[in-house]
Amino acid sequence: MLRSRIKSSDGNKETIARYTSNNPIFVCVTSYTETSKIPGITIAGADSELIAFTPAADAEFLCYGRCKSITGVPATPDGIPTPALITRSALMKSQIPNLIVDAGSKIKPLVPAISFGIRHGKNIMKERAMARADAERGFEYGKILGIQLGMVSDMIVVGETIPGGTTTALAVLTAFGIDAKYKVSSSMPNNPHTLKNKVVSIALDRLKDVSRLCRDPIDCVSRIGDPMIPSVAGIASGAMSKGVKVILAGGTQMTAVLCLLKALKVSLEKICIGTTSYIEDDKSSDIHYLTKSICSSVPILSINLNLQSSDKEGLKKYNTGIAKEGVGAGGAAIAATLKSVKSHDSTSLLHSIEKEYENTIEKQKKHAKIS
Amino acid sequence: MLRSRIKSSDGNKETIARYTSNNPIFVCVTSYTETSKIPGITIAGADSELIAFTPAADAEFLCYGRCKSITGVPATPDGIPTPALITRSALMKSQIPNLIVDAGSKIKPLVPAISFGIRHGKNIMKERAMARADAERGFEYGKILGIQLGMVSDMIVVGETIPGGTTTALAVLTAFGIDAKYKVSSSMPNNPHTLKNKVVSIALDRLKDVSRLCRDPIDCVSRIGDPMIPSVAGIASGAMSKGVKVILAGGTQMTAVLCLLKALKVSLEKICIGTTSYIEDDKSSDIHYLTKSICSSVPILSINLNLQSSDKEGLKKYNTGIAKEGVGAGGAAIAATLKSVKSHDSTSLLHSIEKEYENTIEKQKKHAKIS
Repeated sequence: MLRSRIKSSDGNKETIARYTSNNPIFVCVTSYTETSKIPGITIAGADSELIAFTPAADAEFLCYGRCKSITGVPATPDGIPTPALITRSALMKSQIPNLIVDAGSKIKPLVPAISFGIRHGKNIMKERAMARADAERGFEYGKILGIQLGMVSDMIVVGETIPGGTTTALAVLTAFGIDAKYKVSSSMPNNPHTLKNKVVSIALDRLKDVSRLCRDPIDCVSRIGDPMIPSVAGIASGAMSKGVKVILAGGTQMTAVLCLLKALKVSLEKICIGTTSYIEDDKSSDIHYLTKSICSSVPILSINLNLQSSDKEGLKKYNTGIAKEGVGAGGAAIAATLKSVKSHDSTSLLHSIEKEYENTIEKQKKHAKIS
Repeated sequence: MLRSRIKSSDGNKETIARYTSNNPIFVCVTSYTETSKIPGITIAGADSELIAFTPAADAEFLCYGRCKSITGVPATPDGIPTPALITRSALMKSQIPNLIVDAGSKIKPLVPAISFGIRHGKNIMKERAMARADAERGFEYGKILGIQLGMVSDMIVVGETIPGGTTTALAVLTAFGIDAKYKVSSSMPNNPHTLKNKVVSIALDRLKDVSRLCRDPIDCVSRIGDPMIPSVAGIASGAMSKGVKVILAGGTQMTAVLCLLKALKVSLEKICIGTTSYIEDDKSSDIHYLTKSICSSVPILSINLNLQSSDKEGLKKYNTGIAKEGVGAGGAAIAATLKSVKSHDSTSLLHSIEKEYENTIEKQKKHAKIS
């Protein structure tokens, strides 16, 4: 019954079954791009000062159920809590291990994190995103990690937390020839497409010959992308080289990863995108079009988390198009639902998410009232 | 037949069988203590300048089969190569994943490494080994990692690379009331016991009331130990809390880890020490006495790598009491031998080690001659 909440873009139930695993590993890649500082581009943080802290705070929330680098939890200005809450509930419920990767985060998360030793990304409207060597290292270290994890697990689920990442994704997709304008998603209900298009147009103008660049995909990503993209691509590529399945857990940002993998001629047989129904149903973006344009055989799995039927206000609002996805929430929920755990408690995932919400958001509010 | 090379200190073959695992994970903890700078205390490095690079170079060797932070590979002044060569051969042969932890290394390894965010240890003859907060964080982050890995594997093998570590181990063992003088091992054929005893005596003199300190084990280790000890103890403790078996892969240094675990009241039911026969047979140290004094039920598994029958000079010399163990060589070889891999090639572990030797040490010498 639970599985019926998962849909595959090819309408084939066997596709869903193929991504069943009893020993998946979840990897959360924390990263940062100064592109997120452009006013109006993101709401992944209660205010602009807090945006740089969001990846670290998300990683800490996954690890401890509370944050160390900030007070409270990452939230939109409206107080909608980070999707890390969904991710944590899903992973805990199904006993899926969670490894944090620091691939160019600005604020280092206060957790044991696998460091890829690369710097954070720059504002692509103003300058080159990163040194080519950093993009190369992100991919290389990712590959090493993916290979190691692929020896002990048959499925790697990779999520991300990088504010502003849909704009850099749009730049990468466009550079690789995908018609991605008006098709990347947003954590905001009003997707700032015009602003994103403007930023990307300025970034691409700096590149002399886009078609030539695309023959050197890592170089292209290093100029107009962000550190998350080559790092996640590396992890996926390493894992798949060991015959392991990969769920790219995220929204339209993950299509930029797919684009890079395809350009690097990595086989896309064992990879899918795993996301929430909020992304899939989003009228202001089109993950289906993007994925199909890159590789029509890559399925999109999406899960209906049924948050609208929650009595928690902060969760309900996910259904109004805020937050939608992030920190691998959709992919983690899919992997958790498909993993059969003997000791699995019988409560639904929604119930677990609500419990997590009570333990963190509501306790925090209560505490704020008292103090 | 291969298994017959593994012995258990309790003489019970079932004990060996208990540490069989089809999905072990190897974790290598890289660390540093300035105690290694005391002249004559270690030869884990071709010269004193290179000693600080040894942990990073070992980690790089495990990862790539070559080093990035130094030219060549870590070796004794005689040119005996690092035991990382054994570890890498064993892990590769049996497809055991390898994760590097950076827990207070001085030179950061150029690999994707799980950072515990702690500083390297100081010279215990001169000053406090580390801040209490660093020792606490090493344990806490280790525990988090052990818990995560314990969700996807049923056995964690933890090795270390920290030059000078037997001296800090001696200090910790002594502070916890173990009669460890003349019983810790050394990478040198002539174990510098007198020097070690002197260093430890000075370190312990700085502590006002040793017995009181031992009621606060983490504090004790932070004063006279090194960052490796709480970090490895944390990983072991986290893994065992998930019901997972642990091999402490190393020589007498691992008895200091055992000591800390016991003082922290961690159950020692599912833990063993895994080492080489070179440590077990060593006349200048006594791992059996140390382990028994801490907890008589903890078995020591040891493996005879049969390096004396190799025709490679650098490997043969292991039998003369040089190097002996390190980078988890013994424990990795045990886990690799006990892991049944369908695709396992039929060559012996010694043959794999010799191949690795040819690919690295001999190629390097050849290259040096040509250039």
